[in-house]
Amino acid sequence: MTTVQPEKLSGEHFTSIQLGAWEQLTQYSVEVPALPGRKIPGKLFLRDLMGLSGMEISVNKFPAGVGMPFHHTHKLHEEVYLFIRGKGQFQMDGEVIEVREGTVIAIAPGGKRVYRNNSSEDLYYLVIQAEQGTLTHSATEDGVISRDAVIWPE
Amino acid sequence: MTTVQPEKLSGEHFTSIQLGAWEQLTQYSVEVPALPGRKIPGKLFLRDLMGLSGMEISVNKFPAGVGMPFHHTHKLHEEVYLFIRGKGQFQMDGEVIEVREGTVIAIAPGGKRVYRNNSSEDLYYLVIQAEQGTLTHSATEDGVISRDAVIWPE
Repeated sequence: MTTVQPEKLSGEHFTSIQLGAWEQLTQYSVEVPALPGRKIPGKLFLRDLMGLSGMEISVNKFPAGVGMPFHHTHKLHEEVYLFIRGKGQFQMDGEVIEVREGTVIAIAPGGKRVYRNNSSEDLYYLVIQAEQGTLTHSATEDGVISRDAVIWPE
Repeated sequence: MTTVQPEKLSGEHFTSIQLGAWEQLTQYSVEVPALPGRKIPGKLFLRDLMGLSGMEISVNKFPAGVGMPFHHTHKLHEEVYLFIRGKGQFQMDGEVIEVREGTVIAIAPGGKRVYRNNSSEDLYYLVIQAEQGTLTHSATEDGVISRDAVIWPE
C-alpha cells in the first residue's frame, strides 16, 4: 500500500508542506496503535513529517456520521481541538458541546474526551498537543523583531 | 474601548470557545508590544483566554494587500503557521513560499520570517508556538484509551 506524502520544501530553519484543499485530506492516512493493521484515511500527523520537537499536530477529515469509538485521556499532553469546517459534537466533563467552524476546545491531560460527526457533511479539525506546563515565555517575550528591510521580489 | 471576547464554556478539565465563522474574526483584537497603543483587529491569542500552559495559539485574519512590516525570529519557540483560507506569500531562508489553504510552515527559533497577503481576499491562518525540544512522548504513547461506554444523548 503506497503512502501519499504532501509536497514538501525545506530550508535551513523551516519545513513547509502543501496539504492541498481540505477536501483532499482523504488522500493521507495513518496507522494508530489502537487499531493495528488498519490505515485511517483523512488523518495526518505533522511532527515527524516536519521535524517538530515541541508539539504534535494532526490534521483531520472526519466523515459524515462517524464518531470516535472510545473516550481517551492523556498522561502529559495538553490537547487543543480546533474546528475548521463542518459540524459535530464533543463530550467531556458531562457537557455536550456543539462544534463548528471556529470552535476551539482546550483540554487538560486528565479530561476524558470523545466526539462525533453527527451531521451529513465532513468535519475538518486540527488536534494540537504539547506537554502541559512547558511554555515559560509569552509569545511576545519570545519574539525578536529584526531591523532588516523587508524586500519582496517583483 | 470595549474588548470583544468569544462565547466561553468551561468544565473541570476543559475550556471551550466559539469564535464564530472565520469572517467574524475582525471583531477580536490584540495589543502587541511592537505597536504600542494600537489594537490590531482580526487577531486573538488563546493561551491566557483558555488557560493553556504548553502552547500559544493565535487565530488570525489578515486583510487583502497587507504585509508584516518587519521580519522576526524567536528565542526559544518553535512556530507553526497553518493557513486555513486565502492566499499569500511567506519569505524565509531566501525562499518565497506561496501559501494557501492547506499550507503549513514549521520554523525553528532562529528563522527570520516575514509574510504578506498579496491577494485581493482575506487570508486566514493560525500561528502555534511551543518551546523547542519539550515534547518527550509521541501522541500515541501519551494517549490512554478508556473502556467506558460511549453514550450520546438522544
